[in-house]
Amino acid sequence: MNMLRINGDRLWQSLMEMGEIGATKKGGCARLALTDLDKQAKDLFVKWCVEAGCIIHIDAVGNVYARRPGKNNDLPPICTGSHLDTQPTGGKFDGVYGVLSGVEVLRTLQDQNITTEAPIEVIVWSNEEGSRFPPAMMASGVVAGKFELQDILNKKDEHGLRYGDELERIGYAGVIEPGSRPIGMYFEAHIEQGPVLENSGDTIGVVTKCQGQRWYDMTVTGRESHAGTTPMHLRADALVAASRIVQHVETIAKEHGPFGCGTVGYMNVYPNSRNTIPGQVSFGVDLRHPEDTQLSSMDKMLLDFIDDEAFSHLDIELDPYWYCPPIDFSDECVETVRVAAKSFKYSSKEVCSGAGHDACYIAEISPAAMIFIPCEGGISHNEVENISQGHSTAGCNVLLNAMTEKAKVISNRSAPFG
Amino acid sequence: MNMLRINGDRLWQSLMEMGEIGATKKGGCARLALTDLDKQAKDLFVKWCVEAGCIIHIDAVGNVYARRPGKNNDLPPICTGSHLDTQPTGGKFDGVYGVLSGVEVLRTLQDQNITTEAPIEVIVWSNEEGSRFPPAMMASGVVAGKFELQDILNKKDEHGLRYGDELERIGYAGVIEPGSRPIGMYFEAHIEQGPVLENSGDTIGVVTKCQGQRWYDMTVTGRESHAGTTPMHLRADALVAASRIVQHVETIAKEHGPFGCGTVGYMNVYPNSRNTIPGQVSFGVDLRHPEDTQLSSMDKMLLDFIDDEAFSHLDIELDPYWYCPPIDFSDECVETVRVAAKSFKYSSKEVCSGAGHDACYIAEISPAAMIFIPCEGGISHNEVENISQGHSTAGCNVLLNAMTEKAKVISNRSAPFG
Repeated sequence: MNMLRINGDRLWQSLMEMGEIGATKKGGCARLALTDLDKQAKDLFVKWCVEAGCIIHIDAVGNVYARRPGKNNDLPPICTGSHLDTQPTGGKFDGVYGVLSGVEVLRTLQDQNITTEAPIEVIVWSNEEGSRFPPAMMASGVVAGKFELQDILNKKDEHGLRYGDELERIGYAGVIEPGSRPIGMYFEAHIEQGPVLENSGDTIGVVTKCQGQRWYDMTVTGRESHAGTTPMHLRADALVAASRIVQHVETIAKEHGPFGCGTVGYMNVYPNSRNTIPGQVSFGVDLRHPEDTQLSSMDKMLLDFIDDEAFSHLDIELDPYWYCPPIDFSDECVETVRVAAKSFKYSSKEVCSGAGHDACYIAEISPAAMIFIPCEGGISHNEVENISQGHSTAGCNVLLNAMTEKAKVISNRSAPFG
Repeated sequence: MNMLRINGDRLWQSLMEMGEIGATKKGGCARLALTDLDKQAKDLFVKWCVEAGCIIHIDAVGNVYARRPGKNNDLPPICTGSHLDTQPTGGKFDGVYGVLSGVEVLRTLQDQNITTEAPIEVIVWSNEEGSRFPPAMMASGVVAGKFELQDILNKKDEHGLRYGDELERIGYAGVIEPGSRPIGMYFEAHIEQGPVLENSGDTIGVVTKCQGQRWYDMTVTGRESHAGTTPMHLRADALVAASRIVQHVETIAKEHGPFGCGTVGYMNVYPNSRNTIPGQVSFGVDLRHPEDTQLSSMDKMLLDFIDDEAFSHLDIELDPYWYCPPIDFSDECVETVRVAAKSFKYSSKEVCSGAGHDACYIAEISPAAMIFIPCEGGISHNEVENISQGHSTAGCNVLLNAMTEKAKVISNRSAPFG
């Protein structure tokens, strides 16, 4: 089979065009889920996919499926996808790169009049970011059976607007039951959102797994008192205690190196007044590891630490409210990506996804894998998020190759439809 | 001379009546400087002082002086005072106790038809808290020459309202030049706002000095990145670094024990998102010590620490924006308080003021001292702030005794005025 290649300029142009919807001054995007801007983005996606010969389906949680028929439409489709919603101060590439790489695959097949044996499907998962309606990866989670549809439709944003109502308002409340559509295999291209590929100088990340995550909400309660009049030995300073826990979270991660990660991302201090000893500090702890036994060991180190006598004068609450075990991607899919990268002679590296992605949920109901490309400085969820056009082209070539390998190209130069 | 005693019930009743102006549901007070409530409180003070035979003067920064003439009005007055403004969620006693103890001294002298040689003056210092218009101790600071009058009149609150305009609006913009009125001696009664007296079981704190303070604003800048995708060794986590500094501030204070205090009271984390490594953390450091050499040593320990190599991957800014050296109260005034407490057989303890007070500024232009009484649990700047009536009476008896000792009672049972 001749080496099919996508049109890198056209992909880049589409990324820039999509990036204008909700563009921010700093070059990023603010396109929250189910806003008018999200509708505009979905409309543009639908327009492009129809132009590339697709039939559009929408499910009840707002996922959009663009199907390019194959010769044998009884076969489950070979799918790709990602998301078009962004963080409030997000970039142009997170999620969008995966969706538009899918569109570019469709366009390339169309250009070449290629028919595949199995259908090809490009999916826009609704509300991946979870910024407006938490949690993240919401609509792929419904498809994977992680969340109940009705619960999700009833979620409200901070203004009290309901997910289901907003979905109807923007015209993307479909009737298909989420999870009822077959997925033969699923590949998701994505920017790495971390610095590993840039640091190693590789072009393609062959993603073998998603690391496990344990998230905690913690509150340390001490005693608010005057900074000038309360001797050190009579204090119950919630921030001093919280700071020890922050230090320990770093220690936990380092003791589970090189893959363990530990982060305190948010911290709110009360009353947060210059000369008052903090009476209460709330913060989040995020522990991650690709191995579940190691993640359990990290969890134990955290629980043991806060049981320490040194905290006996304080009240420490820990809510371990989310646990997602590590997910191994399908060997067959991973091998397909590996071979595809090799066939283009792209230098590649086996990596573990540190972030959650729609693919992590879809991997539970279908063989799946991901293709990472480097992002500048490893920076994502940030308006300055950036990728090179060369990497963009490479990742999409690998996606095209992997999908057509599995969907089986059975003819070209002959148009079986449209 | 017979032992004059104040009327403890009347003082308590006045504290409760004043506490109704701006009363909060939790039993505290919200009576910010130069609000309508502050005007009501000042009006009530003026009414009570006029009833007790005083002449009222107001200076250009809003300080109110209630003078009870003596026999020789060429002598500088023996003064007391404090403030009537409160924190946004403050208590009924901080400041108010000192002002109303002064009123109770006036009333007691009036009851007994006592004439003093020197005049007696009770002063309400404007805007001690600095909550609405920073900095704290603003108007006593103008009197002590710490701030320029015009600068203070031009200070704006968070809504852009000018101090000078608000002062005129509530009718307390006087014409007297701040600092032009003589102060023969100054005693200020105040709740301790700390736990030392309660812990030692003493009734009276003989305040010998105000500890020195060094305040810093610090900002640690690292690199914002994804909590799941950034390996530990590639991070520049601003919160991990800030937490080490919080720990070190505690170490600094403890190494300068038992009197050193070190506090990080506020901390703001950016972007403060659960799964983003904090890119920037701003916080305040408050170091205090009664000895200036020790305070300098604490300062050096802080500066040395942030110079450490461990922080070389981050940018640390430190703004040492306020330094107030320790202030020794006048030996003569302190001895007067000590003797007064002894004469009532109150158990007393020599203490250092940990908080700033108007007396700390006035001590720079006049002999001064303070009288502390215990407050429940050492809690202040809090709606649950509380004192016992017994301690309230005791502190006011000491104030009466100290002031009349210095103003010299020359007659009673004969009314020289009104």
